[in-house]
Amino acid sequence: MKVAIVGATGYGGLELIRLISQHPQLTLNSLHSLRGDNELLSTIYPLVQQTPYDLAVEPFEPVKISKEADVVFFATPAGIAKDLIPQLDLKKIQVIDLSGDLRLEKREDYEKWYQNEAASQELINQAVYGLSEWHHDKLQGAMLISNPGCYATAILLGLTPLYEKLDIPSVIIDAKSGVSGAGKALSEATHFMQTHDNLQPYKMNAHQHLPEIEQQLGWVNEAVDPLTMTTQLLPIARGLMAVMYVTTTLSTSAIKKIYQDRYATDPFIRLSGEKIPTIQQVIGSNYCDIGWHKDERTGRLTVVTVIDNLLKGAAGQAVQNLNISQGWDETLGLPIVPMFT
Amino acid sequence: MKVAIVGATGYGGLELIRLISQHPQLTLNSLHSLRGDNELLSTIYPLVQQTPYDLAVEPFEPVKISKEADVVFFATPAGIAKDLIPQLDLKKIQVIDLSGDLRLEKREDYEKWYQNEAASQELINQAVYGLSEWHHDKLQGAMLISNPGCYATAILLGLTPLYEKLDIPSVIIDAKSGVSGAGKALSEATHFMQTHDNLQPYKMNAHQHLPEIEQQLGWVNEAVDPLTMTTQLLPIARGLMAVMYVTTTLSTSAIKKIYQDRYATDPFIRLSGEKIPTIQQVIGSNYCDIGWHKDERTGRLTVVTVIDNLLKGAAGQAVQNLNISQGWDETLGLPIVPMFT
Amino acid sequence: MKVAIVGATGYGGLELIRLISQHPQLTLNSLHSLRGDNELLSTIYPLVQQTPYDLAVEPFEPVKISKEADVVFFATPAGIAKDLIPQLDLKKIQVIDLSGDLRLEKREDYEKWYQNEAASQELINQAVYGLSEWHHDKLQGAMLISNPGCYATAILLGLTPLYEKLDIPSVIIDAKSGVSGAGKALSEATHFMQTHDNLQPYKMNAHQHLPEIEQQLGWVNEAVDPLTMTTQLLPIARGLMAVMYVTTTLSTSAIKKIYQDRYATDPFIRLSGEKIPTIQQVIGSNYCDIGWHKDERTGRLTVVTVIDNLLKGAAGQAVQNLNISQGWDETLGLPIVPMFT
Amino acid sequence: MKVAIVGATGYGGLELIRLISQHPQLTLNSLHSLRGDNELLSTIYPLVQQTPYDLAVEPFEPVKISKEADVVFFATPAGIAKDLIPQLDLKKIQVIDLSGDLRLEKREDYEKWYQNEAASQELINQAVYGLSEWHHDKLQGAMLISNPGCYATAILLGLTPLYEKLDIPSVIIDAKSGVSGAGKALSEATHFMQTHDNLQPYKMNAHQHLPEIEQQLGWVNEAVDPLTMTTQLLPIARGLMAVMYVTTTLSTSAIKKIYQDRYATDPFIRLSGEKIPTIQQVIGSNYCDIGWHKDERTGRLTVVTVIDNLLKGAAGQAVQNLNISQGWDETLGLPIVPMFT
Repeated sequence: MKVAIVGATGYGGLELIRLISQHPQLTLNSLHSLRGDNELLSTIYPLVQQTPYDLAVEPFEPVKISKEADVVFFATPAGIAKDLIPQLDLKKIQVIDLSGDLRLEKREDYEKWYQNEAASQELINQAVYGLSEWHHDKLQGAMLISNPGCYATAILLGLTPLYEKLDIPSVIIDAKSGVSGAGKALSEATHFMQTHDNLQPYKMNAHQHLPEIEQQLGWVNEAVDPLTMTTQLLPIARGLMAVMYVTTTLSTSAIKKIYQDRYATDPFIRLSGEKIPTIQQVIGSNYCDIGWHKDERTGRLTVVTVIDNLLKGAAGQAVQNLNISQGWDETLGLPIVPMFT
Repeated sequence: MKVAIVGATGYGGLELIRLISQHPQLTLNSLHSLRGDNELLSTIYPLVQQTPYDLAVEPFEPVKISKEADVVFFATPAGIAKDLIPQLDLKKIQVIDLSGDLRLEKREDYEKWYQNEAASQELINQAVYGLSEWHHDKLQGAMLISNPGCYATAILLGLTPLYEKLDIPSVIIDAKSGVSGAGKALSEATHFMQTHDNLQPYKMNAHQHLPEIEQQLGWVNEAVDPLTMTTQLLPIARGLMAVMYVTTTLSTSAIKKIYQDRYATDPFIRLSGEKIPTIQQVIGSNYCDIGWHKDERTGRLTVVTVIDNLLKGAAGQAVQNLNISQGWDETLGLPIVPMFT
Repeated sequence: MKVAIVGATGYGGLELIRLISQHPQLTLNSLHSLRGDNELLSTIYPLVQQTPYDLAVEPFEPVKISKEADVVFFATPAGIAKDLIPQLDLKKIQVIDLSGDLRLEKREDYEKWYQNEAASQELINQAVYGLSEWHHDKLQGAMLISNPGCYATAILLGLTPLYEKLDIPSVIIDAKSGVSGAGKALSEATHFMQTHDNLQPYKMNAHQHLPEIEQQLGWVNEAVDPLTMTTQLLPIARGLMAVMYVTTTLSTSAIKKIYQDRYATDPFIRLSGEKIPTIQQVIGSNYCDIGWHKDERTGRLTVVTVIDNLLKGAAGQAVQNLNISQGWDETLGLPIVPMFT
Repeated sequence: MKVAIVGATGYGGLELIRLISQHPQLTLNSLHSLRGDNELLSTIYPLVQQTPYDLAVEPFEPVKISKEADVVFFATPAGIAKDLIPQLDLKKIQVIDLSGDLRLEKREDYEKWYQNEAASQELINQAVYGLSEWHHDKLQGAMLISNPGCYATAILLGLTPLYEKLDIPSVIIDAKSGVSGAGKALSEATHFMQTHDNLQPYKMNAHQHLPEIEQQLGWVNEAVDPLTMTTQLLPIARGLMAVMYVTTTLSTSAIKKIYQDRYATDPFIRLSGEKIPTIQQVIGSNYCDIGWHKDERTGRLTVVTVIDNLLKGAAGQAVQNLNISQGWDETLGLPIVPMFT
């Protein structure tokens, strides 16, 4: 399949290129960016210089893309894909949107949390929400896929199995992300001097992935209370950890069984159990590792999930979703062994 | 006053030396370590070379210390000070213990959480618990001070004002510390390759500061439920953040008032309020900055505190306690402006 | 003395504030910035919040400064101080310029290396070049001091003693600096994602400190060949190391004697000799540590110097120069023990 | 081909496993370590848990390895492979040694620089030195390959083309490596607190890769003077940069031509020219990027090379050498696009 990437100059776009370079069924056809000026990608990222993937970054050209590409990934910041996707011939070309534009079913939720006009309800309705392990069936053959957010992915893979089986009072989530999650734009918060040797909370209970998380949980259990969520910027480039505090009377072995039953056949879920995972053990891979600890003193359950935010949290899950939609092996072209960094 | 330091080769000991070098009332008299072999401290820490503080590190010599020093700091790992302190002439010499050996009133708590024999009840009873802002009166003239743990300090400065005024259901604490908190001993968990670019949870609900925290909260409010606490190792050298999730119906302004009233005259507490603090803003200082956010959707309160774990979490608070005990200005010799790193 | 700082929002300005807070003879009077809008400094740097140093950052007001302050530090980027200094009443107020505007004697050198119009020759001639250890006499009573560059300081403290005694063929310098040296402005090169886990060479043989270095060496030895210099951005916040490759037939003991004789009475020079210094051992202090190694196989001498670029390379040396100019103890108000970070 | 790895618990061994997992012609058969106790590799490296590569780490078992494996990689520390390799049936099994044991032709060089007894001259003579781009012909069909050191690789890829064409006076090398190059053993120098925010020179002119470098240069040019070399530990996990100072009268274009001619057909050499490479642009790949700058003022040439020390400097070049020896495409199974970290 021939691939076009819109938003090629961001970190998600770059990671897609790397994955495509290792994928036996995909060929990179063209790179696009709203500010594309036909300069080589290597003028921004020298790491691709003198590879076959160092293409010129073109402006967004819907006619050309519709004609030449079989699938197009949108790795754009929020608020862009919703206006560009309708310009494509959606009957001929498959679209995977990594931005948040098509994730929320209700337009008012988008408008509240993203502070921007929502996509048309029609477009939203067409999109399949691509939390791979939970929407396998719908993803098969899907022509428009909305890829989940990085925080949402880590949190939902930890919480959805519990919500599916249990009624749970409002969960508390303390989540931390590497700086790549903040995107490539220059800002004080991502200047080395402010990020390095620091930990920066931001968007207290206001992160736009919150309604996405509550929506998915609501699909498996109608009784979902609003969640508490702190997001924090770690002084690392890649990786994301969610620590989730759950009130439940279930025993450790019952919890283990829930996870084992639910994820028995999912190649990218690894259950670490009482050996709490660290961020490092998933970097460079599409895994989500899940650990948990039941405290005897309080009866509370602590669930810890880790992902590489650019892989399972973005480009990796996007390729996984493409694999599923095409009927290929889910793991096709995705690395099996993380990279020790 | 002449100062002796036992445990001089650890990070807490080194930080004490730095503070003493800037303190107008203190002179460093001798350095000691259980493995002291009379080598200069600079053979371990070149940073002190050719300063007046580059003394030989002697073995522990209780007679000499009792004779020469006016105050002795124990910056030893847990389990050592309890056996050494009784060898000193406690009528003549003031002792400030930065290890955990004298923090817990009940010997069985120490033995459960530290997995080691406790100090004698008599010695424990003599010690004043030095959470400076909460035990000002008892610290005056105190000859044996037990300095709080780093996690305990950050957490208690955030929670104690609330517990003093309110009955609160079990609080959830998600705490993160820099690597200096793990001490100087070599270990896999502190090898650069494992620490760097990582976030490592450890001692889930099992950290030895937990009973210390519950004990202090119990002093201001008898109805203290067990707490949930996750501790995590950040890829930074210094700094500690505690994020605390509190169920309360109080309004933001009521919470603000509680903190303002309680800390109105405390020079090392800074109230950041809705501007959530980051670790960087206290490094190199003895401040504890406190921020909070009340979520309208869940009604929950999130409190965030940050300290430099080697200063307010160890050596800084120890000097602050000495200042209080001697009737000096609490801030004497302690830096007023943090260092931007 | 009352102090004004122009360029208060940069890292050098902030470090000056920290030093002033610990200096017994200095009081901070006002903060200025070209873009000063009377907002508190803490809106940019929360670390100063609720300290007596959290002043409003005013525009540059030469009349007010001349009237109220006794000394003014310019911690501005290059190209600004040269135009502002003449607006002050230089007969009444002492000026210390940390930017490069007054360092080069020849206006054409400035215009070549800084690509900007030079200050007037008259202003340049008034300024004393403040490499403290080499211009002690001229600094006494100096009313206009030009503070050396960070690279220049580290390199010159290592090379000047050798050039003073020897004719040396062109030296090769491989220098590395922390990111604070690149300033506060946002740029790709200082974005965390590009800086972190990286080493970035820049300005190959084109750094503007090169003519400054050659000028100082020329003052002690007329036969100075042009130097080779690579500058590199380290993934750290503070610290600077210069490794200098010198062709000489001198023995190790002769080299040691040169350094010892030259720096016998200089409190901020520490000779590490064969124990090559690391950056960490000077952070938070005004020291320059100097080590060297003579290779038997090649006969070459390698000299390694380390400084904290914000202290001996900027604010620390500026205060040292003020101390000297005022006839105070050179070390007044400057930390004696580095901070382990 | 079935692969055995000896020294599987080190960083080089782990990286080999990752590469094997992506290589179409290789299957991992067994893992070995001198201290192998049949525990799963994931007990040391959780990142491999639940992958097909999480084998038990066995002791060294030469009979089993000779019988089952087609190729064995030694990723052991120096001084081990020389004693183990002779225990294998070298007629049946191919051996690639990543340690330094077989790199030096002269036993006395090994004994001087490695301070250890050398391998037998017979074994040394059998080994082909695997600097891939320079020994392509000899590597074809080679059954015993000695893989170059990480510093040697980066330096030799930059210098050998020049030495082949020119007589050059003694070159000065300022080289910097990430911490993974220091190996997995615990030490003060690799403790996070000492490594982080630091730059640590070590082994001044005494690194054991020096004779390896001079030996290879001697093969292309008899007139090789001893080199000056500083090695330094960077506060990063992966990556290595060599900056080389060369005295030459050649013009920039002549230099460019030398590199272009020499490396015209080498897929893992990328010529960056005046755009000096940074470490980041090769991480996760087998590339060596080469940049250079000719200084008009001094006439000197500065050459900068960067590699990922675990790939082109270790496991990547080992797989490249295996590919060449087997007559496969040199790039088989090796990533084409670096990973942005």
